[in-house]
Amino acid sequence: MSSTRDIDALIEMMARLPGLGPRSARRAVLHMIRKRAQILNPLSEVMATVAATARECLNCGNIGTADICDICDSEARANGQLCVVEDVADLWAMERSQVFRGRYHVLGGTLSALDAVGPEELRIPKLIARVDAEGITELILALNATVDGMTTAHYIADQLEGRVRVTSLAQGVPVGGELDYLDDGTITAAMNARKSI
Amino acid sequence: MSSTRDIDALIEMMARLPGLGPRSARRAVLHMIRKRAQILNPLSEVMATVAATARECLNCGNIGTADICDICDSEARANGQLCVVEDVADLWAMERSQVFRGRYHVLGGTLSALDAVGPEELRIPKLIARVDAEGITELILALNATVDGMTTAHYIADQLEGRVRVTSLAQGVPVGGELDYLDDGTITAAMNARKSI
Repeated sequence: MSSTRDIDALIEMMARLPGLGPRSARRAVLHMIRKRAQILNPLSEVMATVAATARECLNCGNIGTADICDICDSEARANGQLCVVEDVADLWAMERSQVFRGRYHVLGGTLSALDAVGPEELRIPKLIARVDAEGITELILALNATVDGMTTAHYIADQLEGRVRVTSLAQGVPVGGELDYLDDGTITAAMNARKSI
Repeated sequence: MSSTRDIDALIEMMARLPGLGPRSARRAVLHMIRKRAQILNPLSEVMATVAATARECLNCGNIGTADICDICDSEARANGQLCVVEDVADLWAMERSQVFRGRYHVLGGTLSALDAVGPEELRIPKLIARVDAEGITELILALNATVDGMTTAHYIADQLEGRVRVTSLAQGVPVGGELDYLDDGTITAAMNARKSI
């Protein structure tokens, strides 16, 4: 007796990934089955490897394959700058831009009264310890421009007042952005922070 | 020396699946790593199982885990009706609607002069053989309502003229559809096929 139980299970699991739904999961699974040598087998293997090796960096919270991630491990990145982000995805986004050559600290979220997230739930005590231990001279807060993100930024700036220079990302018009599509808050922020050219 | 090579490889492979891009692949991979026990490990295992067991049904072209799929294997489905679809995804869509209780035949595409796809590239010779071998009384052409789909339907109807009753899916207004959003061709087809109520 034959069965498609495993195929159905695979579709169901794929459909639960963020960004995929039942329809796209079915398409992806059919595609994978058709190209099993090029896609399905290697994907299964690399997933098993990642599942066995991926871990959070004990220092900064980045995801890598060792207890201390590549960035924390690199002496070249110890330039006194520490960039604070909410999430590993934000760290990866910063790295893609290649604009920052210091180290990171991943908070793992933002303070939130509504969700009862306090400083102890995030990596804020560890952040404060790192500022002294690693001789940080500038703390760059690259948090999302949401209410919770700004609350968290202010809390961190308060905690470290006078001990280190604290900066945050500039707000303004996105590169390539059209004014017509921007919200009022962004236009106001860009106007207030206008520069001579 | 630590490395994120495997994580990058996983993101790159996921990004090549239909329906996913680099951004959604990164999100999916971070999500999988965070929930490795619930998602990453089981997903890797079920992929390996599917890669080892999935195969095309030798009779109809459906994808299952045996040489003859569940539907071709079921005597209850041998009701004399054979539904012809382009692709396995179409067969799955028909099965979800549960409206059809006969067997299927997956062509594997449509005839296309542009892409040099002739009857021999599809499962058309096998289809013609099945009509006699399985005592088919009605052939239901459930092909996509595209130019190539309709060309293929006419070709098959021509080949089997006089040997079997050939029908095709009705064209009209989709259930729940709003006239305002329909194209002219669909409205014309629905008008021409109007029914007394």
